[in-house]
Amino acid sequence: MDRTNLIFEGREKLIYSTDEPGVVRIYYKDDATAFGGIKRAVIKGKGAYNARIAAIVFSTLEEAGIKTHFIKSVSDREHLCRKISIVPIQVIVRNRLAGSTARMLGVANGTKIPNTVYELRYNDDELCDPMINEHHAVALGLVSYEEMEEMMAVAARVNQVLKALFSKAGIELVDFKMEFGRSLEGELIVSDEISPDNARLWDEETGEILDKDRFRHDLSDVCASYKNVMDRLLKI
Amino acid sequence: MDRTNLIFEGREKLIYSTDEPGVVRIYYKDDATAFGGIKRAVIKGKGAYNARIAAIVFSTLEEAGIKTHFIKSVSDREHLCRKISIVPIQVIVRNRLAGSTARMLGVANGTKIPNTVYELRYNDDELCDPMINEHHAVALGLVSYEEMEEMMAVAARVNQVLKALFSKAGIELVDFKMEFGRSLEGELIVSDEISPDNARLWDEETGEILDKDRFRHDLSDVCASYKNVMDRLLKI
Repeated sequence: MDRTNLIFEGREKLIYSTDEPGVVRIYYKDDATAFGGIKRAVIKGKGAYNARIAAIVFSTLEEAGIKTHFIKSVSDREHLCRKISIVPIQVIVRNRLAGSTARMLGVANGTKIPNTVYELRYNDDELCDPMINEHHAVALGLVSYEEMEEMMAVAARVNQVLKALFSKAGIELVDFKMEFGRSLEGELIVSDEISPDNARLWDEETGEILDKDRFRHDLSDVCASYKNVMDRLLKI
Repeated sequence: MDRTNLIFEGREKLIYSTDEPGVVRIYYKDDATAFGGIKRAVIKGKGAYNARIAAIVFSTLEEAGIKTHFIKSVSDREHLCRKISIVPIQVIVRNRLAGSTARMLGVANGTKIPNTVYELRYNDDELCDPMINEHHAVALGLVSYEEMEEMMAVAARVNQVLKALFSKAGIELVDFKMEFGRSLEGELIVSDEISPDNARLWDEETGEILDKDRFRHDLSDVCASYKNVMDRLLKI
């Protein structure tokens, strides 16, 4: 793998500088991690599927007027993106209660809810990404209350757009994680990726799990499920 | 101990029915617990000090127009209170980051902050009182968004009134936990207690700890510190 111009290596992505200032190239790896990096594997082809899915997601958001870091795909697993400074907050949007939140609240996995649940996590490996709220985020100097409010409004809009997108593919968007960055102009824009790696995607008819939970819980056909999601989105 | 008419025994309180419907008698025990009930002791006299401190706190809140469950003291460790149905949410108000929140966020104990931090916990022993946010509270059917907003506004007002009260006694109100109940009329009112058992109280000059952290961390003079807080409040 060419490491020239590598700016940053994450668990699942490589970020390279480009000749154009303010633009980076993001490479989607096949590495999969779960449980805060404790469980690791290489899932051949995953990077390409996720890059394609994320490209469709970002394009759909841009068409809906939501600003993202995505500029365009430049290979089967590379995106050109606007350079951002990371806001170290994960915004998690839940249309049902599943996974760690369902366990935390003592309810069944997949519990239907009358409202949309938004959660924040402080992106910090050493602290194990603790759940926080807007007051902690402001106290830590990560964002202002105004920025927090803007992020929550964007998250609600993203949820609306992506529920509709996945529904067209016969997929229920159970929950997803998103992140924001500040562009060089200081704008808050949607960054990172939205893919089966950080969303729960269930077949609308059968309830079949089509996301990283297959890897987390040692279900079969992890890669085939990611491809399934990609194929369905490409058919819309 | 007379257990006639006992409705409920908590870790640190006994609740009795009275002849008057809608009114209960709350007895403050000397039992102390910490770390979710793992550390336990009897601190002779604590119940009486806390009952007196809580009475002063509740009276001060009522004078400021904030509705509480407190009616009056009827002995050195008993209050008559309005009967409520419990809202199983702890509202924690922080003027500095200390204790578990400081550890969670990776900052020094007692870190000063530019804003007031509000936190919610779901009162559930089996789930270890997890930190939640307003969306979880609504999803669980514990409160509506409107009630949540009302509770946060009351918490802000309580903080303002109690910071001023304790400051008059030379004490800094670092943080405190409060709970709400629904009165028989359906009103949300401040319930439980606010005392050195669920507040961090530091001497404004010396920083000396005057609260349950003395018990948690095996510092000396737990009881003397509670008495110190009471004596200071009585002298205002």
